[in-house]
Amino acid sequence: MTQINAHYLKLQGSYLFSTIGKKVAAYKEAHPSQKVISLGIGDVSQPLVPAVVKALRAAVDEMGNADTFRGYGPEQGYSFLREAIAKADYQARNIAIDKDEIFISDGAKSDVANFQELFSSQVKVALQDPVYPVYLDTNVMAGRTGVFQEGRFTNLIYLSCTEENNFMPQIPAEHADIIYLCSPNNPTGAALNREQLTSWVKYAQANESIILYDSAYEAYITQPKIPHSIYEIAGAEKVAVEFRSFSKTAGFTGTRCAYTVVPRGVQVKDEQGSTHSLRDLWLRRQTTKFNGVPYIVQRGAEAVYSEKGQAQIRAVILQYMQNAHIILEALKTAGIRAFGGENAPYIWLKTPGGLKSWDFFEILLENAQVVGTPGVGFGQCGEGYFRLTAFNTPQLTQEAAARITQLKF
Amino acid sequence: MTQINAHYLKLQGSYLFSTIGKKVAAYKEAHPSQKVISLGIGDVSQPLVPAVVKALRAAVDEMGNADTFRGYGPEQGYSFLREAIAKADYQARNIAIDKDEIFISDGAKSDVANFQELFSSQVKVALQDPVYPVYLDTNVMAGRTGVFQEGRFTNLIYLSCTEENNFMPQIPAEHADIIYLCSPNNPTGAALNREQLTSWVKYAQANESIILYDSAYEAYITQPKIPHSIYEIAGAEKVAVEFRSFSKTAGFTGTRCAYTVVPRGVQVKDEQGSTHSLRDLWLRRQTTKFNGVPYIVQRGAEAVYSEKGQAQIRAVILQYMQNAHIILEALKTAGIRAFGGENAPYIWLKTPGGLKSWDFFEILLENAQVVGTPGVGFGQCGEGYFRLTAFNTPQLTQEAAARITQLKF
Repeated sequence: MTQINAHYLKLQGSYLFSTIGKKVAAYKEAHPSQKVISLGIGDVSQPLVPAVVKALRAAVDEMGNADTFRGYGPEQGYSFLREAIAKADYQARNIAIDKDEIFISDGAKSDVANFQELFSSQVKVALQDPVYPVYLDTNVMAGRTGVFQEGRFTNLIYLSCTEENNFMPQIPAEHADIIYLCSPNNPTGAALNREQLTSWVKYAQANESIILYDSAYEAYITQPKIPHSIYEIAGAEKVAVEFRSFSKTAGFTGTRCAYTVVPRGVQVKDEQGSTHSLRDLWLRRQTTKFNGVPYIVQRGAEAVYSEKGQAQIRAVILQYMQNAHIILEALKTAGIRAFGGENAPYIWLKTPGGLKSWDFFEILLENAQVVGTPGVGFGQCGEGYFRLTAFNTPQLTQEAAARITQLKF
Repeated sequence: MTQINAHYLKLQGSYLFSTIGKKVAAYKEAHPSQKVISLGIGDVSQPLVPAVVKALRAAVDEMGNADTFRGYGPEQGYSFLREAIAKADYQARNIAIDKDEIFISDGAKSDVANFQELFSSQVKVALQDPVYPVYLDTNVMAGRTGVFQEGRFTNLIYLSCTEENNFMPQIPAEHADIIYLCSPNNPTGAALNREQLTSWVKYAQANESIILYDSAYEAYITQPKIPHSIYEIAGAEKVAVEFRSFSKTAGFTGTRCAYTVVPRGVQVKDEQGSTHSLRDLWLRRQTTKFNGVPYIVQRGAEAVYSEKGQAQIRAVILQYMQNAHIILEALKTAGIRAFGGENAPYIWLKTPGGLKSWDFFEILLENAQVVGTPGVGFGQCGEGYFRLTAFNTPQLTQEAAARITQLKF
């Protein structure tokens, strides 16, 4: 019988959201008259903005007309979208990224998951704890993580992010080849400032490592001290890859479009010590295994950069950030210490009275009929923490906040 | 410096279509008055059919409305589409495939490329020659192929498909764990009949191997003796995975939607000999590394199965198959032996006078201003052959055919 990739068997069960789902369903069945509000899963609630809808409609019409129909597009994405991104997200910030260093894809999740394929199975990986599970799981599948012992994989460098260090990943003493950084962070909402990010770039330069920088939530940054792109830090263009998404920026969670920046200056070496362009390797990967994003969707993403599109998405993001503010205020009133929510749509709270994450989940559901995500689901360091998201509607967020305010601990 | 996946360095240059592009550009520059017609790349020319356009428009409107907006969908695809596929493509043919064995994706290329991840790096792979390059390249990247010597990789089983065996892959004497079969075939246009496919299923049963069956062109089958699905063969539901696409079926090359069938009965084993469900492994892979296909696109694909959608796509396919017939007739008149084109949109011709593939390319371009694809670009066994496609417009196909008819060899 054909043998499987044995590394898959090392994957730890990903029961977080299914367990939440089951507990919520059981509660609803037992309390049919109660209205449960979810501040749990990180999905958006607001529709696509009018500028995007208009562009999607026009593109659909083009696809139905022989004169304007488009078949296979470039695997890397259409120039019109890559140019719009390069101009608005980089050149306007005085960052010298050009369109050929940008790769359009169907999601930051796909790109973050696939990118590790370019590296040797022997590279040493560092990642934050708590962490977005995709970084971890895809390296487990690739056989880079060693075995799972006492709650952690033996061959990873875990960057613990706790209240003691303001949820900021600390520079490790040992050498890492690849460092996953997520800022603004999911789940903690913490964002690296210029100085902190500079120290990571310096570490990567000194160690000749590569930073895989997930900035899917950069549109939620409000404070000027927080860089929107890692390329705002000098030298990053030689050591960093940046992942961005339209999912949270423009409500594309169900529309699927993202992009990855791989600057020409990032080099890797082979066993003989010869250097190779990481950008060219990614291009080869994408042309071999991917056929590009729908033309229609790329036109929708392009419209995000129009004047109207920008104004419309900023209004939606502002609304979500007002939700975040409302949740933060409610937690404060309830006497619960909370973090994040300033530069990110996530609020990370410390469970009162040293409650375990799952115990707090039960209490919140029972007493406020509000659903959130137990922090321990994101890693060992998440125990005793809990994530709430700002993506529900203003009305339901306010209702949830009012209930939280009434909680007694 | 961070080490790369060294297997990438074994990839042979994929210069086929870029070389063609350069040669055509040079010809056009030297002969600006000549009108060059491409029967080369396998992209479609006809727009999306009205039923699909209508469904896409409706879905765009839903996404712009708060009441009907959809965020993250199921990674495996929406039930409405998986049900439509199960019913129309399988249950209507008395094949017991249900919706939970179907996985929607952004392309058969992606799925065919990613599926090998589920297997050990030690599995023995068999593939056809000539071959769709994605099967080969993705196994090279995964380190399964050995080294490249005298035009072939040392650790692969090549199933040579030539005029002598009617371009049919022959059952190998040795054991293969994974067999890639493409039928109707790209590039040869050959299609396995029931008896031939049965012998492959029997081989897989006897060897406990898995057949990765690419039937992206099944909609072009015209002869009743050719199965549309491998699951028409008894026992295949325990040994085969099937890849299908809307690209050539419904003109989705730029719209991106496909699906993969992994029946519950297909088992694989781990190093200790325990068995695992291949379907569950693929589900785990997809939920970890993929976030589903745009809702809009899935509604477009669903419309392919409506009564109007079926009538409209059949009309387009018929038109392409008429193109194939026109090309076959022209080649016959020109005294060129040609194959395929009966159950596939590809015509595979034997170059006259034993010409090398690239020499014939030059002659066809110089003397008929028609562009095709040198067979050697698909593998050693393609030398002396040449691929033409039926996907251009009827008018340009007729014009190309008229020029071919005038050729003298």
